[in-house]
Amino acid sequence: MKSIDRASYVALSGGIGGAKLSLGLAHLLGERLSLIVNTGDDFEHVGLYVSPDIDTMLYTLGGVVNTETGWGRRDETWSFMQALGELGGPTWFNLGDRDLATHAERTRRLTAGETLTGITAHLASRLGIAARVLPMADAPVRTLIDSDAGVLAFQEYFVRDRCRPAVRAIRHDGAPAACLSPQVRKALAAPDLAGIIICPSNPWLSIDPILAVPGLSAALRAAGAPIIAVTPIVGGAALKGPTAKIMGELGLTPEALSIAEHYADLIDGFVLDIEDAAAAGAIPTRTTLAQTVMQTFDDKVALARHCLAACASIARQRRAGAPPPRAKVRP
Amino acid sequence: MKSIDRASYVALSGGIGGAKLSLGLAHLLGERLSLIVNTGDDFEHVGLYVSPDIDTMLYTLGGVVNTETGWGRRDETWSFMQALGELGGPTWFNLGDRDLATHAERTRRLTAGETLTGITAHLASRLGIAARVLPMADAPVRTLIDSDAGVLAFQEYFVRDRCRPAVRAIRHDGAPAACLSPQVRKALAAPDLAGIIICPSNPWLSIDPILAVPGLSAALRAAGAPIIAVTPIVGGAALKGPTAKIMGELGLTPEALSIAEHYADLIDGFVLDIEDAAAAGAIPTRTTLAQTVMQTFDDKVALARHCLAACASIARQRRAGAPPPRAKVRP
Repeated sequence: MKSIDRASYVALSGGIGGAKLSLGLAHLLGERLSLIVNTGDDFEHVGLYVSPDIDTMLYTLGGVVNTETGWGRRDETWSFMQALGELGGPTWFNLGDRDLATHAERTRRLTAGETLTGITAHLASRLGIAARVLPMADAPVRTLIDSDAGVLAFQEYFVRDRCRPAVRAIRHDGAPAACLSPQVRKALAAPDLAGIIICPSNPWLSIDPILAVPGLSAALRAAGAPIIAVTPIVGGAALKGPTAKIMGELGLTPEALSIAEHYADLIDGFVLDIEDAAAAGAIPTRTTLAQTVMQTFDDKVALARHCLAACASIARQRRAGAPPPRAKVRP
Repeated sequence: MKSIDRASYVALSGGIGGAKLSLGLAHLLGERLSLIVNTGDDFEHVGLYVSPDIDTMLYTLGGVVNTETGWGRRDETWSFMQALGELGGPTWFNLGDRDLATHAERTRRLTAGETLTGITAHLASRLGIAARVLPMADAPVRTLIDSDAGVLAFQEYFVRDRCRPAVRAIRHDGAPAACLSPQVRKALAAPDLAGIIICPSNPWLSIDPILAVPGLSAALRAAGAPIIAVTPIVGGAALKGPTAKIMGELGLTPEALSIAEHYADLIDGFVLDIEDAAAAGAIPTRTTLAQTVMQTFDDKVALARHCLAACASIARQRRAGAPPPRAKVRP
């Protein structure tokens, strides 16, 4: 029997909500946590390689995030952006002066031939992070938004156009040529792996790009550990970002059930917000209730603890021979 | 007869000393001044294209230079460098937060296919500069220092190693493939060109790279206007930088005479510092005395005025049929 105190865990995460739960998980697990982070939002801007979700994760876990915005660094200065505007440069993507150092150092090391995974490990180490922060892939996989305003690069859609265009489809450009990094493979093949947690990130924009990396879904299933997802939808709305809007545009009802159904083939458990308790019966997998809204550090740790317990519970039920509930809804 | 009030001028300039005289010239001439600026120091750093001499010129003429250091921007912040150091990045080359915007915008436009000349004109316009700031070439010409510490890229020698290695020779990598930009060609072919001024920059590090651009020396001579050089050496020493040290390493006596001899084939006149008045007789070209040390704005304008007068004087003597004094020392 795996001990929760020694076992390792993997979490899949995208933006701000994912980083919040990851902070709780990292607090409980330290180096026993591997985070597979979306890089579909990555782009090159003013000559620099920017990796927004990796950076949000690094800054959050490193304790240097701007807690008011959820992204960027605290104690930030904005001289660069001010001067760039004065020179007629593009100011639609905010780059703080301290934040710029991350992009510059990453770009410098990429140019020198280092991998994104190696660079991220270096940056995490400099920020004092014990958890393993792993880009979903070293090769570029770029999220493209097929919208009523044409095909948009992710940051054009998300930041420049503020998610205003209606989404018709989402593509993962470059995915077929990507592969699992040795570090992601190792994390998912760990003999002591006790659970895989899909963070409350946008399934379409943040988690699907990760799952689009060839071999990743198969490796998640082959890992054999319980896989659970935490809802990013509470009371029919997303706490942050365009999840509910996109769901409507894709013809889905913006409710937790739609999220659980989206992950139906992958997950063994689902964490529903207490506010949506009435919907629990309809979720086609083992469902637990938790406060998924994370305002304080304690909220994050409490939800993380809930997730670990949910994984342990599924593992116990499996050992007891209970059939997985999701089997009920399969054909 | 060309009127000094309508005529155009060209100046060749490198670093801080050159920018100081250029500021004086720009004050007197405005858009009638074309500055051909050294780009041999340009390099790529943390993913950005940095053009130190162009930037010193832009910041000086734009009134945003840090007057204490002579380079970089005033009212600068240093959050980027601090964060870069914390991430283990290279901190040997100082990049202020506002300064970074110049490099980022230049890099963005270069990547988009614009020329260095076009980008520099854009930046100059945004900084309210009337004079034409012209890179010596759009193609890369890189100054390499052959030293007792091996062959060094210019910034490695100049900034990282603080000019400590002994110089054996100076190379202009890429020069054979460079050519005159249409803008440089036009400035030197202007029918109203009344003078060409070689600023008090380091002849070996700042002016020779400009002269190494194929066709430039020939175009200077073909322009027909008086060419004068202002000494960067006063009392046997350079005011700033390694000029005197390099002269010694190249086997030259660090005195104004050596500078005048270096330019002997090119110039029609030489501006010697009043402190070195005793050496005037040995200079093999028309020589005038001026205060070349520029501490105040008025000093810069006064020296600029002296240069314009020296060019006018040479032109008058030519019209009067006086033989060029430099002919005396030619074989």
